[in-house]
Amino acid sequence: MEVYLDNQSGTKIDQRVYDEMLPYLKENYGNAQSMHSIGARSNDALQKARKFTAELINAKENEIFFTSCGSESNNLAIKGVAQAYKDKGRHIIVSAIEHFSVLYSARRMQQDGFEITYLPVDKYGLVSLDELKKSIRKDTVLVSVQHANPEIGTIQPIDEISKIVHEKGVLFHTDGVCTAGVLPIDVNNLNADLLTFSSSQLYGPSGAAALYIKKGVKIIPQIDGGIQENGRRAGTENIPAIVGFGKACEIAKQEKEQNYKKTIKLRDKLISELPKKIEHAYLNGHPEKRLPNSVNFSIEFIEGEGMLLFLDEKGVYVTSGSACTSKALKMSHVLSALNIDAAIAQGSVLMTLSKYNSDEDIDYVLKEFPPIVKRLRDMSPLYAYFLKTGKRQVAGPGTDYEHEHNE
Amino acid sequence: MEVYLDNQSGTKIDQRVYDEMLPYLKENYGNAQSMHSIGARSNDALQKARKFTAELINAKENEIFFTSCGSESNNLAIKGVAQAYKDKGRHIIVSAIEHFSVLYSARRMQQDGFEITYLPVDKYGLVSLDELKKSIRKDTVLVSVQHANPEIGTIQPIDEISKIVHEKGVLFHTDGVCTAGVLPIDVNNLNADLLTFSSSQLYGPSGAAALYIKKGVKIIPQIDGGIQENGRRAGTENIPAIVGFGKACEIAKQEKEQNYKKTIKLRDKLISELPKKIEHAYLNGHPEKRLPNSVNFSIEFIEGEGMLLFLDEKGVYVTSGSACTSKALKMSHVLSALNIDAAIAQGSVLMTLSKYNSDEDIDYVLKEFPPIVKRLRDMSPLYAYFLKTGKRQVAGPGTDYEHEHNE
Repeated sequence: MEVYLDNQSGTKIDQRVYDEMLPYLKENYGNAQSMHSIGARSNDALQKARKFTAELINAKENEIFFTSCGSESNNLAIKGVAQAYKDKGRHIIVSAIEHFSVLYSARRMQQDGFEITYLPVDKYGLVSLDELKKSIRKDTVLVSVQHANPEIGTIQPIDEISKIVHEKGVLFHTDGVCTAGVLPIDVNNLNADLLTFSSSQLYGPSGAAALYIKKGVKIIPQIDGGIQENGRRAGTENIPAIVGFGKACEIAKQEKEQNYKKTIKLRDKLISELPKKIEHAYLNGHPEKRLPNSVNFSIEFIEGEGMLLFLDEKGVYVTSGSACTSKALKMSHVLSALNIDAAIAQGSVLMTLSKYNSDEDIDYVLKEFPPIVKRLRDMSPLYAYFLKTGKRQVAGPGTDYEHEHNE
Repeated sequence: MEVYLDNQSGTKIDQRVYDEMLPYLKENYGNAQSMHSIGARSNDALQKARKFTAELINAKENEIFFTSCGSESNNLAIKGVAQAYKDKGRHIIVSAIEHFSVLYSARRMQQDGFEITYLPVDKYGLVSLDELKKSIRKDTVLVSVQHANPEIGTIQPIDEISKIVHEKGVLFHTDGVCTAGVLPIDVNNLNADLLTFSSSQLYGPSGAAALYIKKGVKIIPQIDGGIQENGRRAGTENIPAIVGFGKACEIAKQEKEQNYKKTIKLRDKLISELPKKIEHAYLNGHPEKRLPNSVNFSIEFIEGEGMLLFLDEKGVYVTSGSACTSKALKMSHVLSALNIDAAIAQGSVLMTLSKYNSDEDIDYVLKEFPPIVKRLRDMSPLYAYFLKTGKRQVAGPGTDYEHEHNE
């Protein structure tokens, strides 16, 4: 049996998306900027995809700018706005648990004289609204707080955050990679000036993502060249991927409610049953304000790598955290920001569900996971020490994210 | 009958490439950075593709960095090197007929205090080596000259150029989007420090390109975030597109010689026959040092748009110039740099061949094209004036490329 629970790293493509893409991969290969009929077919497909993509988040078509991936969208949002408004000021605020593509984009702007404020979060990963208020300065040009965290699933109160930010006359970006197609998103209600979302997290193909840029917001392109995407993003459009992204958005709009209901049931079963079968398992993230498809446990007295490998042997595919850092095998900057002890954080497991998962999948995980934990704990000197003394050896708080990136 | 002659804007995917990609679009959807088996399958495919991609240009695997398109690769090369070496100096040299993604990347660096020298070209589009020598300064950090021009097909003497550049201790980048898979490329012979090439120009899919970065050359990433591509390009890898790119490189390595022979025969037929059937048709670009698949004629007393539309009606798909600007309907910066009169340049037609084109295709074009020219000229007041007086109305040299870009 195979159970894929790493959907935050990428979802399996929907068959209907796949079918929609194929003609553009094969026969309809025209460049959307070419003036002939074959190019026009590609351009029509591009604009149709833009319509569906806009509709998912209730934006206007001319507010959608296609990019190649969520990281590129986040880079464009952070750097592009910072560069466009640098004469107004050089201060950016981001939460400490943003995706690396936000954190490192912000850090890159330090070289242009920007100062970055990292908003702390509470033990559930929620940004403090008071801290946010205090952090906004006269020279602040952008605040970026993710809609939900990819690793712990905590959902931020974006409408409240954007209200505070806008009252100070500052632009607001939110990374919606985890939430577009999962939660209802209306950019007018969220009141975001910029919003990132990506195809590969909503049953679409790799190679397409979008940045919503509210009309009137200035931005400096990060890929310069041709006139594509209204001058905001040069480079030949990846038509098959964008067509797939559009179809995925169309489907997500229709089915996100039923997917929500399905995954939240499976999620809650995992959250309630796993600790009954595995002692010393602690849920990371907010107990209620969390993504319907996300479960993250820290399993004490366990090293993450062994746990992933043994689960893999049983056909259960999970991750220790975000895909971007899992191979670095360093402590997650997210768990670190939650002030979780490094010894506990190292046994973290992230399980993210999709619409393809079933009740049987969860039962299989609940059956196979506990013996693996037992096997690993039997080998653990830390666990032996605990059993003998009843005491824990504490490693201290985790590393700062600054040190995790091997550049 | 349909004859696709816009292959510089994108080639039709090779069936074998398509077949290789499909499993990664559908079943093998794992994130290459995930530690489980499904992720490992993607990572294996990624490294295999990297091997084939490296082999096409005789590079080492760890010198290949995947991006989403040629424009992104060019941006990374120009901006990334400029930013990495800005303490050495702030001067960049590019040819005046580079792709917009090079020209506008260079121009963007002016905001960081860089000066840009645009190397002029002769009437065939060849860069002057003497001008190059004179242009290199102590503070020059990068010279970028394309391997061949996408619009007029002129091939630059890259080995001589790189020799001059390296003698002055300066880094050299070449845009090989038109030449990879078309001409033999060996980065050691070309002696390039950086080389751009792209999947969609060599019968691979959209969504994948590469930047060759010679070991030891420093570069600042343009998409910051995760650890992908050894820290040089963050963002989830587009595995299906990269797998397709790899396969396309493998095939191109084996078959580029036979494709060369095939297209050059068709090219030469067009070049020799078209002027016999259409008066006042002037070949743009170099008569010998040109791409084997590229034909560009200026047809006097004609407006380009009407010509493209009438050809389109007959199923002949061509373009007026580069896909990135054809819709802008402004005079090409390339023809302008060649000092071609605007009145003549506006009747330019670019026909780029692929391995799928046949002798029948060319015969069809030679049959259908002349009556279209006649029809358009019959409507032209400029042509009537010429017939009556034997004189031409000259519009003067073309616009500077600075004015063509609607940003």
